[in-house]
Amino acid sequence: MRVRSLSTALYRVPLQRPAEDALHGTMDQVELVLLRAETDEGPTGLGYAYTIGVGGTAIKSLIDDYLAEEVVGEDPLLIEGIWEKLWKRVHWVGRGGLASFALAAIDIALWDIAGKVAGLPLYKLLGGCRREIRAYGSGVDLNLSDEELIAQVEGFLEEGFTAVKIKVGREDPREDLHRVALLRRRVGDGIELMVDANMRWTAAEAIRMGKALEEFDVIWLEEPLIPDDIDGHRQVAQALTMGVAVGENLHTKYEFQRYLSAGALDVVQLDVITLGGITEWLKVAALAEMHNLPITTHYAEEIQVHLLAASPASWFAERHAYRLDHVLERPLILKDGKIAPPEVPGHGLVFDMDKLSQYRIG
Amino acid sequence: MRVRSLSTALYRVPLQRPAEDALHGTMDQVELVLLRAETDEGPTGLGYAYTIGVGGTAIKSLIDDYLAEEVVGEDPLLIEGIWEKLWKRVHWVGRGGLASFALAAIDIALWDIAGKVAGLPLYKLLGGCRREIRAYGSGVDLNLSDEELIAQVEGFLEEGFTAVKIKVGREDPREDLHRVALLRRRVGDGIELMVDANMRWTAAEAIRMGKALEEFDVIWLEEPLIPDDIDGHRQVAQALTMGVAVGENLHTKYEFQRYLSAGALDVVQLDVITLGGITEWLKVAALAEMHNLPITTHYAEEIQVHLLAASPASWFAERHAYRLDHVLERPLILKDGKIAPPEVPGHGLVFDMDKLSQYRIG
Repeated sequence: MRVRSLSTALYRVPLQRPAEDALHGTMDQVELVLLRAETDEGPTGLGYAYTIGVGGTAIKSLIDDYLAEEVVGEDPLLIEGIWEKLWKRVHWVGRGGLASFALAAIDIALWDIAGKVAGLPLYKLLGGCRREIRAYGSGVDLNLSDEELIAQVEGFLEEGFTAVKIKVGREDPREDLHRVALLRRRVGDGIELMVDANMRWTAAEAIRMGKALEEFDVIWLEEPLIPDDIDGHRQVAQALTMGVAVGENLHTKYEFQRYLSAGALDVVQLDVITLGGITEWLKVAALAEMHNLPITTHYAEEIQVHLLAASPASWFAERHAYRLDHVLERPLILKDGKIAPPEVPGHGLVFDMDKLSQYRIG
Repeated sequence: MRVRSLSTALYRVPLQRPAEDALHGTMDQVELVLLRAETDEGPTGLGYAYTIGVGGTAIKSLIDDYLAEEVVGEDPLLIEGIWEKLWKRVHWVGRGGLASFALAAIDIALWDIAGKVAGLPLYKLLGGCRREIRAYGSGVDLNLSDEELIAQVEGFLEEGFTAVKIKVGREDPREDLHRVALLRRRVGDGIELMVDANMRWTAAEAIRMGKALEEFDVIWLEEPLIPDDIDGHRQVAQALTMGVAVGENLHTKYEFQRYLSAGALDVVQLDVITLGGITEWLKVAALAEMHNLPITTHYAEEIQVHLLAASPASWFAERHAYRLDHVLERPLILKDGKIAPPEVPGHGLVFDMDKLSQYRIG
């Protein structure tokens, strides 16, 4: 079997309402680069990359102008081989960053083909571990008023989530503490809480805030510092009893390896798009397991539910307050606080093109 | 003063002859993204990014579609402020990689404006240290026969270079040793030799090869391993008496910081394009000086001659066997084995548009 063609399309999908965090400010759209791989024997693969508003056209250029020609003609089941070839092809401007997003879109499509060829849902193709994954409700909500924050969390509880994450990192740190206190009072003791600082703090600030937040039984503090500061994260991880979660901004397995060997994180947070695809995800998951650390995911839950279902180290999938549900044919369904991969060959993700096509820009 | 516009153009410039190294294989073109920044008070800035054939259209997309709008309207002399704003804007798909190339093009144009406003050549605007920099002749020549290799080196000697670098990393390592032996015999004892393995080896291989190469009095071994392997480089640096040079594939100051604090390199090799611009270059140069390590540059010597002339830690500038001379109005001139920055306001780099325009593709 050979790959016959690789084609892409770019969409800007508006968020149902604007989201805000401590680093990125206000975000009002998701860019989607959809990728379709066709083979000469029938099976097709769907891959995609997303951005939070910046970089989509460049990802599409990288695939269309340089990477597609490297994949066409290859056996789509030699995924590791293709991945390595593409990594080297784009190495000079790569080693992470935007190149990882482009590789992810291609890699996901190849794994989709592999699942269809095998007649197996992706999580079983990958060795399968469990059928359901706990999910948590995740707010991108630094801009919300107290009332809106509570309303969002009540929405999560009504959906059936048993764990909830909110943003911290406001200009005045007392407001962070006030909001977490408010939240804990509202949800009671039975719900797990996490907070996400989106790289706002220094190590000293993160330790001070983390210690103050321990009163509210927060299970993890996410991205307290810029991802470049590994030693700072190590200091924070050692100082706090709550876990330190890092990963959505790491773009290579090597970056994770450095974090793990430094003891600079407690919760390994993976994003199959920002990390360069399923092939890389599996390696980092194995490393997390060897370090006896739990895995959670960031966004892209329709693909990552398979990956979590295939790893013994998996813990939570993230379900954002804003999702892609409104442009999907089969959104994930939460049941008893859990989500499950679809029992169809490949990853089973299908965009609703009737709804999505209005957002196409390239 | 405000930036009024930022415009880009993409060129594919054929190399005068194909080049080959151990990772990238054969390269036959350089992509150039030229960037022109105009201000409302007259001074204009020229910036550029180059690639070795892959990524140019994506760099252009990133600038045109996302970054230009962030720069227009800004005071062009608040360069650090603009740099930080752009870093954050592109952070999600950035933290190095392709984004660093886009930031470099913009940053170089802003420093060019600053030089023109100040009426100073860039190296004096940056605090100036010396007027001349030693340059070495650099071959990208893994594919050359013995005869061609010697002919290339004889060309370097005729030009007046007193130091020469060749590629190593052939399939059969005995061929590397043969070529370096040949070269040393040809140039005698008065010429400094360096070798570049372009990430071909493991740490053990690099130590074995490095020890064998010591017989030929090689002053540095460049990129023995993949740039992601910091600990491996540390092992090689500790085992060898020759220096280990690393840097052209590092895309952020943070990556350099990790290498330097790990003691994983001896020669700090900077590329103002792959590192994200002059603003970042200066910080890494300061760090190198604090670690008592010498700086050399990779490619882009027309800009970097200014930077080397401004740093007390500078050692060599690289002059490639293939250069941009044929599309420049004022190529650098080698005199007594040295090059000097032009004594004009800004960086003084001027492309010859009559010659370059035939290569425009976007």
